[in-house]
Amino acid sequence: MYIVLLSGGSGKRLWPLSNEVRSKQFLKILKKDDKTYESMVQRVYRQILTIDNQANILIATSKDQVPILKSQLGEKINLSIEPFRRDTFPSILLACLYLKDIKRVDIDETISVCPVDSYVDDDFFHKLNELDEKIKDSSYNIGLIGIKPTYPSEKYGYIINENKDKQFIISNTKTNKFIEKPNITMAKELIEQGALWNGGVFCFKLKYILEVAHKYIDFIDYSDLYNKYENIEKISFDYAVLEKEKSIGAVKYIGEWKDIGTWNTLTDVMVDKSIGDVVIDEKSNNTNVINELNIPIIAMGLNDVIVAASYDGIFVSDKKESSYNKLLVEKIDNRPMFEERLWGTFEVINIFNNSLVKHIYIKKGKNISYQKHSFRKEVWTIIEGTGIFLLDGIKSDVKVGDVLTINIGSKHSIYAISDLHFIEVQLGDKLLEDDIQHYDYIW
Amino acid sequence: MYIVLLSGGSGKRLWPLSNEVRSKQFLKILKKDDKTYESMVQRVYRQILTIDNQANILIATSKDQVPILKSQLGEKINLSIEPFRRDTFPSILLACLYLKDIKRVDIDETISVCPVDSYVDDDFFHKLNELDEKIKDSSYNIGLIGIKPTYPSEKYGYIINENKDKQFIISNTKTNKFIEKPNITMAKELIEQGALWNGGVFCFKLKYILEVAHKYIDFIDYSDLYNKYENIEKISFDYAVLEKEKSIGAVKYIGEWKDIGTWNTLTDVMVDKSIGDVVIDEKSNNTNVINELNIPIIAMGLNDVIVAASYDGIFVSDKKESSYNKLLVEKIDNRPMFEERLWGTFEVINIFNNSLVKHIYIKKGKNISYQKHSFRKEVWTIIEGTGIFLLDGIKSDVKVGDVLTINIGSKHSIYAISDLHFIEVQLGDKLLEDDIQHYDYIW
Repeated sequence: MYIVLLSGGSGKRLWPLSNEVRSKQFLKILKKDDKTYESMVQRVYRQILTIDNQANILIATSKDQVPILKSQLGEKINLSIEPFRRDTFPSILLACLYLKDIKRVDIDETISVCPVDSYVDDDFFHKLNELDEKIKDSSYNIGLIGIKPTYPSEKYGYIINENKDKQFIISNTKTNKFIEKPNITMAKELIEQGALWNGGVFCFKLKYILEVAHKYIDFIDYSDLYNKYENIEKISFDYAVLEKEKSIGAVKYIGEWKDIGTWNTLTDVMVDKSIGDVVIDEKSNNTNVINELNIPIIAMGLNDVIVAASYDGIFVSDKKESSYNKLLVEKIDNRPMFEERLWGTFEVINIFNNSLVKHIYIKKGKNISYQKHSFRKEVWTIIEGTGIFLLDGIKSDVKVGDVLTINIGSKHSIYAISDLHFIEVQLGDKLLEDDIQHYDYIW
Repeated sequence: MYIVLLSGGSGKRLWPLSNEVRSKQFLKILKKDDKTYESMVQRVYRQILTIDNQANILIATSKDQVPILKSQLGEKINLSIEPFRRDTFPSILLACLYLKDIKRVDIDETISVCPVDSYVDDDFFHKLNELDEKIKDSSYNIGLIGIKPTYPSEKYGYIINENKDKQFIISNTKTNKFIEKPNITMAKELIEQGALWNGGVFCFKLKYILEVAHKYIDFIDYSDLYNKYENIEKISFDYAVLEKEKSIGAVKYIGEWKDIGTWNTLTDVMVDKSIGDVVIDEKSNNTNVINELNIPIIAMGLNDVIVAASYDGIFVSDKKESSYNKLLVEKIDNRPMFEERLWGTFEVINIFNNSLVKHIYIKKGKNISYQKHSFRKEVWTIIEGTGIFLLDGIKSDVKVGDVLTINIGSKHSIYAISDLHFIEVQLGDKLLEDDIQHYDYIW
């Protein structure tokens, strides 16, 4: 079995913690042990490897998530990288072709596609093995994980059983075998009939998807699809496959299952009331504070409030209202103020007229690319660690207190001998992340 | 008449907007016109000069407030500077001796002592002229401004009239001529009897205070008191004078009067719901946001909440609870992260291990003192404006993009030819404001 993790698009629903470059699955808000936090993608990846440390995992993602995925999961992860975002069906197909053509996976192999933003018990991933058996013995063409509902939710999708209490086979007789967001009366009825929540997992044989795909997309192999990817239509897996397939089954999972996509569900899984430099008084109830800034937050006498602060901004909201933040967040047109890269992290700590100050951290043994800017000068002051600075082909050792001036047009890079921190002052009329030309250089 | 404005001590009650170096009277939160905000001290100073542009104003303050007072009111203000904080009576006495001995004010002159944190109509200061008349014709020894109560407040001090509806003379027959914070029943009774709120203004002849003072303090003149000030006992004007004096009168003021010392009263006088880069949604009620950071704040669905953010921290509180912040704020032991100085302002925009980043702004035509640090190196990058840099006696012109390195022990200063902004990176084991030695230098 190959597990394909779908690491989906960015969204501002959890602004200011999530932004254009940090999707919700990368937020390190899940308590792993006393001192460390992990992100959703780290948790899911760890859970799968806990069950089977030889598990074959491929992450289907887009180009811009590669650095943060490698940073959070290690550089050896397998990635299928969409050159453009084209919804779930093309993305899953590209991943499957990557497995077939690059990884030489047999077309009879089971593929399990899983979301990376479900907060579940380890047992959830045991269900993948059950599904694998079902797909192997051709019980059905597509296998799903159905979650036993704990209450008549109006927010989830339900999958309908053909024959109550027996092996879970999705109804083909009824028009609606999938019911999205029913009202509460209907939800109660559905649960009574044995319906399950749809866990967003799809299992199938590799050859199955290849056959289905030709109905929608004209392709020869992985590289052919990759090359024409820009012109592929956006199409969802649900539309292309699930709604049309007549042979669908599910295995039932009983246990915790949450979609960490809203402030409400996110704060539900927080072990402590707060993360970061925070004081919450005793009169506050059902209030959570997440502080990524290095100034303190004091919260007093608040009920059902979420406070979140990052270098992008500060969000203070009643929890019920927090899901309606889209319009307000869209009004804010700032550049992302922090990023996690393969080599480390940076935060924009302040922006002025024609200048900008960053704190840059490069992990020991890493370097930034050899690069050039056309519109800005940069001044770096090393504040921690040691490294090697490369300026227009000339190397020099650098240490705390050294000041490096990089004029417009100068090629430059830096390599961290030990964990390296520096303050960068950018100066120029156009201070944009994309004012950058990369050059090859082997450190 | 001489008006002595008492610019009192710091306090963290309005943290993070107020801190050790910025007392509440210096917060620029009062809307002056469409675009500008003024502080309490600026408002009071402006109101007094609006009524009489020849008014004699002396500000009694402590050493550490001198830079911000000059920055907000101009460099030509008259100051009586306490070398140490010693409560209101020594402070008022020192100011009076300053007037007598330094300014050569006649001892028959009226002195009106006013707080700087009362939010009042201009008419309040007209009342000072009425009081001046009363003191001149010796109607009483001490004159007060009594505010006509608008509701039976349990928070204020009341002054009791001897003879209802006639000239307001403070009762001598009753034991309590001043009643602090009565319960609501008593407050209603007091109002019924014609009592007024105590506006915190004291008027008297200069010679009066000199006579009274000798009962408590042994002094010859201004310089004598100044020199022994450290050893003077802390004693309040209320205790030393008001409670013992039998001849006290008041003039009645009818109009707005608020003490801007709590979040509740402060937000009461805010014309707009928010200051700074803030979005408040329509579902929020009675919610105010003050944002001094340059990242946006979004507030949603909040009721009766105050949000305040500065470089010192972020405060989010139910308005009723906000007055109990003292214990929580005291737990926070940060250095003040922003300061307003005579020459301009600075903010600490981030702190790391053994390094610290400041944004420093120097007003056109100003300079910082010629100074030296024993424990830190500094790197300055000019980001806006032009100036003259002085390093160990050698001057050089500086402009945007210039990088100035100041090693430990180097004497340095900078003069702003135009409004000058630079980023300072401090490096060292001890990064404290008081690691500074000043040297004389005439620019």
